Amino acid sequence: MSSAVDHPLVLSVDAKPYAFSFDPKHTALLVIDMQRDFLLAKGFGDIQGGNLEAVQASIAPTKKLLEACRGAGMTMVHTREGHKADLSDCPSSKLVRQSAAPNNAQPSLVIGDKGEMGRLLVRGEYGHDIVDELRPFPGEMVIDKPGKGTFWNTNILHMLKARAITHLIVSGVTTECCFATSIREANDRGFECCGIEEATSGYNDACFKKATLDMIHWSQGLFGFVANLQPLLDVLTPLSPPAHPAGSTPPQTPRAFDGDLRLLSLQKAYKDGLSPVSVVEAIYDKIEAYKSIDPAVWIYLEKKENALEAAKALLTKYLDRSALPSLFGIPFSVKDSIDIAGLATTTACPPLAHVPSVSAVVYDKVISEGALFIGKTNLDQLATGLTGCRSPYGIPHSVFHKDYISGGSSSGSAVSVGAQLVTFSLATDTAGSGRVPPGFNGVVGYKPTRGTLSFRGVTPACLSLDCVSLIALTVADARTLWQVLEDHDPLDPYSKPTIAFERHINSIGRQAKTFKFGVPPAEALLLCSLPARRMFNEAIRKLQDIGGVLTPTDWSPFEKAGRLLYDGTFVSERLASLPADFLERNRNALHPVIVELMDAVVARQSTAVQAYRDMQAKAIYTRQAGSVFSYSATGIDVLVVPTAPTHWKISEVLEDPIRKNSHLGEFTHFGNVLDLCAVAVPAGTYPVKELSGVEEDEGGLPFSITFLSGSRLDAEMLELARRFEQSVEGSKKIA
Amino acid sequence: MSSAVDHPLVLSVDAKPYAFSFDPKHTALLVIDMQRDFLLAKGFGDIQGGNLEAVQASIAPTKKLLEACRGAGMTMVHTREGHKADLSDCPSSKLVRQSAAPNNAQPSLVIGDKGEMGRLLVRGEYGHDIVDELRPFPGEMVIDKPGKGTFWNTNILHMLKARAITHLIVSGVTTECCFATSIREANDRGFECCGIEEATSGYNDACFKKATLDMIHWSQGLFGFVANLQPLLDVLTPLSPPAHPAGSTPPQTPRAFDGDLRLLSLQKAYKDGLSPVSVVEAIYDKIEAYKSIDPAVWIYLEKKENALEAAKALLTKYLDRSALPSLFGIPFSVKDSIDIAGLATTTACPPLAHVPSVSAVVYDKVISEGALFIGKTNLDQLATGLTGCRSPYGIPHSVFHKDYISGGSSSGSAVSVGAQLVTFSLATDTAGSGRVPPGFNGVVGYKPTRGTLSFRGVTPACLSLDCVSLIALTVADARTLWQVLEDHDPLDPYSKPTIAFERHINSIGRQAKTFKFGVPPAEALLLCSLPARRMFNEAIRKLQDIGGVLTPTDWSPFEKAGRLLYDGTFVSERLASLPADFLERNRNALHPVIVELMDAVVARQSTAVQAYRDMQAKAIYTRQAGSVFSYSATGIDVLVVPTAPTHWKISEVLEDPIRKNSHLGEFTHFGNVLDLCAVAVPAGTYPVKELSGVEEDEGGLPFSITFLSGSRLDAEMLELARRFEQSVEGSKKIA
Repeated sequence: MSSAVDHPLVLSVDAKPYAFSFDPKHTALLVIDMQRDFLLAKGFGDIQGGNLEAVQASIAPTKKLLEACRGAGMTMVHTREGHKADLSDCPSSKLVRQSAAPNNAQPSLVIGDKGEMGRLLVRGEYGHDIVDELRPFPGEMVIDKPGKGTFWNTNILHMLKARAITHLIVSGVTTECCFATSIREANDRGFECCGIEEATSGYNDACFKKATLDMIHWSQGLFGFVANLQPLLDVLTPLSPPAHPAGSTPPQTPRAFDGDLRLLSLQKAYKDGLSPVSVVEAIYDKIEAYKSIDPAVWIYLEKKENALEAAKALLTKYLDRSALPSLFGIPFSVKDSIDIAGLATTTACPPLAHVPSVSAVVYDKVISEGALFIGKTNLDQLATGLTGCRSPYGIPHSVFHKDYISGGSSSGSAVSVGAQLVTFSLATDTAGSGRVPPGFNGVVGYKPTRGTLSFRGVTPACLSLDCVSLIALTVADARTLWQVLEDHDPLDPYSKPTIAFERHINSIGRQAKTFKFGVPPAEALLLCSLPARRMFNEAIRKLQDIGGVLTPTDWSPFEKAGRLLYDGTFVSERLASLPADFLERNRNALHPVIVELMDAVVARQSTAVQAYRDMQAKAIYTRQAGSVFSYSATGIDVLVVPTAPTHWKISEVLEDPIRKNSHLGEFTHFGNVLDLCAVAVPAGTYPVKELSGVEEDEGGLPFSITFLSGSRLDAEMLELARRFEQSVEGSKKIA
Repeated sequence: MSSAVDHPLVLSVDAKPYAFSFDPKHTALLVIDMQRDFLLAKGFGDIQGGNLEAVQASIAPTKKLLEACRGAGMTMVHTREGHKADLSDCPSSKLVRQSAAPNNAQPSLVIGDKGEMGRLLVRGEYGHDIVDELRPFPGEMVIDKPGKGTFWNTNILHMLKARAITHLIVSGVTTECCFATSIREANDRGFECCGIEEATSGYNDACFKKATLDMIHWSQGLFGFVANLQPLLDVLTPLSPPAHPAGSTPPQTPRAFDGDLRLLSLQKAYKDGLSPVSVVEAIYDKIEAYKSIDPAVWIYLEKKENALEAAKALLTKYLDRSALPSLFGIPFSVKDSIDIAGLATTTACPPLAHVPSVSAVVYDKVISEGALFIGKTNLDQLATGLTGCRSPYGIPHSVFHKDYISGGSSSGSAVSVGAQLVTFSLATDTAGSGRVPPGFNGVVGYKPTRGTLSFRGVTPACLSLDCVSLIALTVADARTLWQVLEDHDPLDPYSKPTIAFERHINSIGRQAKTFKFGVPPAEALLLCSLPARRMFNEAIRKLQDIGGVLTPTDWSPFEKAGRLLYDGTFVSERLASLPADFLERNRNALHPVIVELMDAVVARQSTAVQAYRDMQAKAIYTRQAGSVFSYSATGIDVLVVPTAPTHWKISEVLEDPIRKNSHLGEFTHFGNVLDLCAVAVPAGTYPVKELSGVEEDEGGLPFSITFLSGSRLDAEMLELARRFEQSVEGSKKIA
């Protein structure tokens, strides 16, 4: 695979106090408050007595700026100032200040009052929305902010970090107010900001515009940079693809599908005219062919006619190829513990199968963004297991070798991505189910911080440790999916709030150049196979090559938390989500290894007192692990571990199913116990014979490392994982 | 008691765009960055080429402003811009921007480099600190901020909310940079801000100062108000007490102690020259006298000589009465489950007694702020119980009546405050232990959101539900203590982070005028005694009188969470903190009711599976309860309940100790299960005979209501509780 999308490209434009340099991939355009209420007659600004001519002058230059940035593939952010209908987010100071003026000659309408374009500055009203000329495209960020600053009471900081944005080009109204306030906020948070003179204006430009811009770049850049529009257009325009007129139909001879299923590549190809119908045709051919290689991937395969119909419906719905939703035409699979309305959810456990009437939140979301559902994938029964060998629907094998396990529990999901039958899979992770299988199939497995993706509509394995995970071809793909899916779900009791305190970003310093990583101690790595140890050492060297500083790290909280899962009462929670007599009633219908496992849990007779002791221990280890990742002189940015200590043959697992399974979780079990985020990334391949010791064995097996970081540090972790992935690109092989 | 400290006082000064009106009690002075590094030669500003003369001109006016605001008793906030020694909170954009300028003629020193006053803008360095003229006094807030804005990456918003601040007077340097940025941030968050023209200046006043101030008040107050210094001094100076020259010794004839032990009254009296020695003398007399009324209050009483010595040591240590630490000379008691180094902690359970070598974090903190330790108080054994009748050290009774219970488990703590033997008590709350006893003794019991005060050094009752609570004479006292004690403790695994996302404040609207409250449904209130029902209805009317809107509220999550404590496995956690064979080894040494209770817990044979089901239920109810308090059209600000449904006689409890105890927790049990904050507030008294039905019974008993709100909404809840307390002041009687 080429890594064209990842090459750094630094542009530079004349600016004050000196040239502004930026990489468009790490730069967002921030268009502030170009709303009807501020720009048009009878809007809020007009009622306040603002000079409309001045602000309207910025519309045309902003449109040019918008098109150039969009063409260059930059992240686009539009803001709208306004309030909830009940005004509960509008401080009374803001509400009454103008109207409280004793000699106020202006009309006394305030925020929330009815104007000619609807209630003034209220979300959902016509006047609150952005002017037609600058309408946001689907998939572009729209930030509804209650303040003049863009960062107060919004989640923009998190969203920019999620996209690895370090630089902002800023435009919009009004210069002295929301434009300047937002630049000041962004500057404090570490963003390099450049305001565009022609693309901003205020109601009182005569008095304030020059002073405001001068303050930004004064003292060698107190708050950032100021540039003119034209030099910026000059550097951005060459990056735009040849224009398709808006609303045009795709070219007569559609672009052929080149087989590259990566999400970012497909997005680009669709913009260039590729038809999702061609993609569906191609992948169903591959799926058909792969059945003879591995018949155990799917529990349910969508009918080809249905998939084709869905692809055609997308073509009808989205005529303008320059304005597609973020997952337009992206084929995906779903682990069969995740609900899709009208289809049975089996969790690979027929006694538990049910046909839900409502789909899981994450499924609905990717569908609403235009993704194409291909099928539901095999898994270890009850999502319990790391081998892939515990399903009544057969045993999938690694896409690298038919004798070697696929890993589990998300076995079919990882194979469907690894064999490039789909672009991504929605899976789950409790104790490593979303990391080990991608590791054994040469793809990326990302387990976001628990509670940041909704778990509603997913069959629980161990509810307080479960999360939805994403299996994808690249880190960038996984990150894009995360951006689409991440949201607070008020109906999921384990959902974390959307807006948490966020640490600053460090745009061009530590994050981009050097970082600190820890690894397990030598005695823990002794559990690994010889090739895994060799490959892990190689990975450490690669991390050092890209700026990683190997830092001594306290391994004990990770080890102890892992042991809580092995030896403690946590396994009892697997029974807590099942009906009381489930095991007895279904003993014969369950997979024999699952029965053995559950019998062992019951036999332990764990007490509530023991469970509370374990919960207390969990709290202690979580605090200890959190402090390992703290931003301080001694803290590390990421912990790096082998995703799995070895790669078993299917035959080896079948002979000793429980111990072989436990061993695989050595470096994954603690992840959700300690509320960490994690991403498994391919780290090259090694010869099968190096593992088996049999000189005649041919082919290679994949090695994978997992990056872990503290709760909600996903963005920082993914950016480091992406840089590592880039450095191993050469040695990565996908069948 | 008089409520002099609580009278509203609205001042008004000439300002642009119109007069700025403020209540000094709800107003803070914000002095921005008056640091040596910005104001003095060879500092950071000087090195950057700033005009020092201009900024130095603001020192003298700021000093006048500071003294006037301090004299008026306003909240004082000083900010310092700077970074941690490892610069981990300094974005690289800020670090390199100036030095990266291609034609930079200025010296290339950047933040963190060594200057003549230490490392530039690094915390702890000489240059980073505030100039001598404007030195902060003990107890005044000093905010170390990494940005130009005061609100980014600091906890100032929380601290201002905790103090019920709605208005800010702003001064400092530089006008165009940190001063203006902070005003913009504060305005977005709902504060009414007024900048003081003479008390701010910048390095380039010629270009920027006028424009910056004009932008603040333009458009009828875009960001706030701007006033001159003199009119403000004119209204503030009359509020100053007669000056004691700094460093003077107390007057020759010390002011006599008037017996008013309220924290805020004592603070004022000490400033006026009262000696803590007089206070210690007076309260030891009271303690001695009270022993004949109730001998069961104390488990350990500090020797009077020691207390007197501590008081004298304070006099020596703090010579300047205008600059005292916040708890100077404030006498307090400590529940005997909280460690004090060198004294036995008994938890009213001799087999568990131990002499700790380290004190609890909360104890150390109040001592470091000048508080005077008086003694350790009685409690229900193992902090388990709500009656006060389960201690080997005797049964304290309500300060209102010798036949009626004190409540528990913080029995002695509540009596020591209710009898005005001390100003406050450090206690705990698991299922109501910090609310019921204050309710039965006519004082305030405040249980902050769990994890906001350190629990380190406290004997656990049920660790995942325990918290430190504060028993005080008034809501204002409790709030002041909370402000002193609240801090993230990285070594307490249940400690919450200091800086969480904070909702906006609504300075002069909803918060101050109307609020929404919910109450339990009629059927739940039927559990109350007749006088409790009558008094509760009266309290509802009082709440409506002060702007409360009674709002229908879903009671089910509260009821179900309470039942989890009655019927579920949560009681098993009480055993989880004790050694495995504790009950068997100490059967004869324990209080018989505690033995009966623990035997019942053991007999339930609760399993780990049940415990995990209960934890899942807890998560669901917590989400449901959280949504009851959400800021929305349907959410309430506070839930209001009777603190206890009735007031038992000691004899009644002794006859039926377990059921009578459970009944008392009807309105408290759910508080910590659902992660709520709560404060019990006196709500008048009723005749004993109304409860007993015996016409001859004389005297009155206290009634108390408890305000509850969502996690971390303590500030909003306390402000409403304070307003309620004010409205019942007239009918409040303290023996």
